[in-house]
Amino acid sequence: MLGDFTYCNPTKLYFGRNALEGLKEELPKYGKNVLLVYGGGSIKKNGIYDKVLALLGECGKTVYEDAGVMPNPTVEKLYEGVQRARDCKADLILAVGGGSVCDYAKAVSVSVNCKEDPWEKYFIKFDDVDDGCKIVPVGCVLTMVGTGSEMNGGSVITNHKQKLKVGHVFGENVFPRFSVLDPEFTFTLPKYQMTAGFFDIMSHILEQYFSGEDDNTSDYIAEGLMRSLIKSSEAALKNPLDYEARSNIMWTATWALNTLIAKGKATDWEVHMLGQAVGAHTDATHGMTLSAVSLAYYRHIMPFGLKKFVRFATNVWGVSAAGKTDETVANEGLAAMEGWMRRIGLVMNISDLGVTEDMLDGIVKSTFINEGGYKVLSPEEVKEILKESM
Amino acid sequence: MLGDFTYCNPTKLYFGRNALEGLKEELPKYGKNVLLVYGGGSIKKNGIYDKVLALLGECGKTVYEDAGVMPNPTVEKLYEGVQRARDCKADLILAVGGGSVCDYAKAVSVSVNCKEDPWEKYFIKFDDVDDGCKIVPVGCVLTMVGTGSEMNGGSVITNHKQKLKVGHVFGENVFPRFSVLDPEFTFTLPKYQMTAGFFDIMSHILEQYFSGEDDNTSDYIAEGLMRSLIKSSEAALKNPLDYEARSNIMWTATWALNTLIAKGKATDWEVHMLGQAVGAHTDATHGMTLSAVSLAYYRHIMPFGLKKFVRFATNVWGVSAAGKTDETVANEGLAAMEGWMRRIGLVMNISDLGVTEDMLDGIVKSTFINEGGYKVLSPEEVKEILKESM
Repeated sequence: MLGDFTYCNPTKLYFGRNALEGLKEELPKYGKNVLLVYGGGSIKKNGIYDKVLALLGECGKTVYEDAGVMPNPTVEKLYEGVQRARDCKADLILAVGGGSVCDYAKAVSVSVNCKEDPWEKYFIKFDDVDDGCKIVPVGCVLTMVGTGSEMNGGSVITNHKQKLKVGHVFGENVFPRFSVLDPEFTFTLPKYQMTAGFFDIMSHILEQYFSGEDDNTSDYIAEGLMRSLIKSSEAALKNPLDYEARSNIMWTATWALNTLIAKGKATDWEVHMLGQAVGAHTDATHGMTLSAVSLAYYRHIMPFGLKKFVRFATNVWGVSAAGKTDETVANEGLAAMEGWMRRIGLVMNISDLGVTEDMLDGIVKSTFINEGGYKVLSPEEVKEILKESM
Repeated sequence: MLGDFTYCNPTKLYFGRNALEGLKEELPKYGKNVLLVYGGGSIKKNGIYDKVLALLGECGKTVYEDAGVMPNPTVEKLYEGVQRARDCKADLILAVGGGSVCDYAKAVSVSVNCKEDPWEKYFIKFDDVDDGCKIVPVGCVLTMVGTGSEMNGGSVITNHKQKLKVGHVFGENVFPRFSVLDPEFTFTLPKYQMTAGFFDIMSHILEQYFSGEDDNTSDYIAEGLMRSLIKSSEAALKNPLDYEARSNIMWTATWALNTLIAKGKATDWEVHMLGQAVGAHTDATHGMTLSAVSLAYYRHIMPFGLKKFVRFATNVWGVSAAGKTDETVANEGLAAMEGWMRRIGLVMNISDLGVTEDMLDGIVKSTFINEGGYKVLSPEEVKEILKESM
């Protein structure tokens, strides 16, 4: 059953080999000052930086830069970016990069005209953006696939001192006004980042799928997205220049986390809580923290949501249920997922991400407990799952 | 492979048992004069009219009415509505009804300030809305499910004199600004209209699915939507007050035709061309014209898109392919669809809609030929399919 909800996703997407041309349509809608936000500089090597700068010039923009956004953007970097956006009186923040760069741009966007400390306000107190607080509009040029940040209001910021990595989901006024999605921009991504992105997508879908007992359309869409992802991820791994596969993955990633498949249903997000806690203690790649804890988590909660795990096995992995117990079918589904995870080369253990036994209690403390999944975890269960993931 | 595209769907949806309350958020955004558009008056019997009027009053609106929109809105009615909207200086057109009422509202919306004859301009010449032609914004309160008109730019108008029923797809500026989707509003719909709506949804998905040879995410989403629809339609038929089923169907209908599952791929729409030609000659219920021609059409084109029909059989209907030829699997898929169609009580023959042998040549003439499907039909083939459908 679909519960009550509203749906509105105003982000305009330009998709395909000429997507960057969309900037010519979008840039004239904003004022002169553009804050160009990007990461470690790979966009300078692959030519995207030059192309973007040329288009900004063509549209008569004055460009200010905020480079060096790290894979897990820190609160210190956020403060720095807010100051930079204030100093240059940014009319538009243009994020060129992966999900971290987009996330960061949105966090800056809502903080420029915010009088309080943004970390406290948005990531500790989970406050909404104040009425009357002018949001600086954000546009994205995506160079890495996975987070879905290009079409949602999400932003994840890490505070290393507090050992916290926290996500805030802002309302539709903070969604990027436009995003440029050119699958070829993802061709040069190193394999580790690419496969981490694949699992980030899968995890987004699973977090929304493994919750609730009812029959609803959102779960059927989720199953379609997973089947597409499984097929295209293996194809992209064989040939990273496979445009068909890369374009499907890019599109799947967007719909995996742009609010659609959560509509009208409960969601979980406990794998992200576990993964983000691991990330806060190790600074490991986001998608790999999710893959390293997922199997232990899902095997742990399976008895509490058995029917859904059976459905997952049959509808997503094609497991035949004939003559088998529900437990067997459900286990075969998770085994099929494990096989896929190993084939695409994901990190399967948190020890491979630098977690040692003595860090476990700290990670347990950093793990938020959600209540939307099939089992509300106790701290002891969190520790057990982390141990299983070692 | 996903071809290049842009995606933008700005319609805000209020979904669920309290969806009508969304009017309180939306109405204040528009001027004082509201043109309330509706059909034959069933909304007066089921109480929706009174509820909407109360909310319009609460928001201080001056309400003008344009009633009597027929199931296949005519060009004469369109001219009348345009005059009415001009006379009352409508700031907002509020459509309360099914897809025909929403379609009609959009046709009026783009015609109020259009200097040319709207039938000629939009439905014969397929012109875009002129720059500078002020569009009167449209909002919808949906009372019947099927067309997807609540979240797209489509509008179908019938010209009985010319024996034409023609659809025009307008751009995102013509999409309803908001739509209210309360599944309970569909509870009182007569069974014939309800099941016609079910097949309208299915047909929308099939038209976008049965085209192209490539692997793309859109088709996986389409398969998920079909599986959801098949399950929920049978449940709704057993118990029309089954909120779970009705809410899933309402949501599926929206996503079946709001541009998403057509993105990056070829589409067909020949069944709609055939069905609309039948409709132009009989004024039969839209969904039933589609059901009455579908099987003959799909059996005719199956050899030209065999791989996709095999995929349809296995992924949507769960047909086992083991040890069978592709033809057998594909035929079993269509047979499974036929079984579902008969179970939910659709009209299976155009003769049951009033078509007689002597009308066939006229219907052939009224049938537009599309080029996106697996086979571009000759007029002889159109006639053959119509004969098969008798």
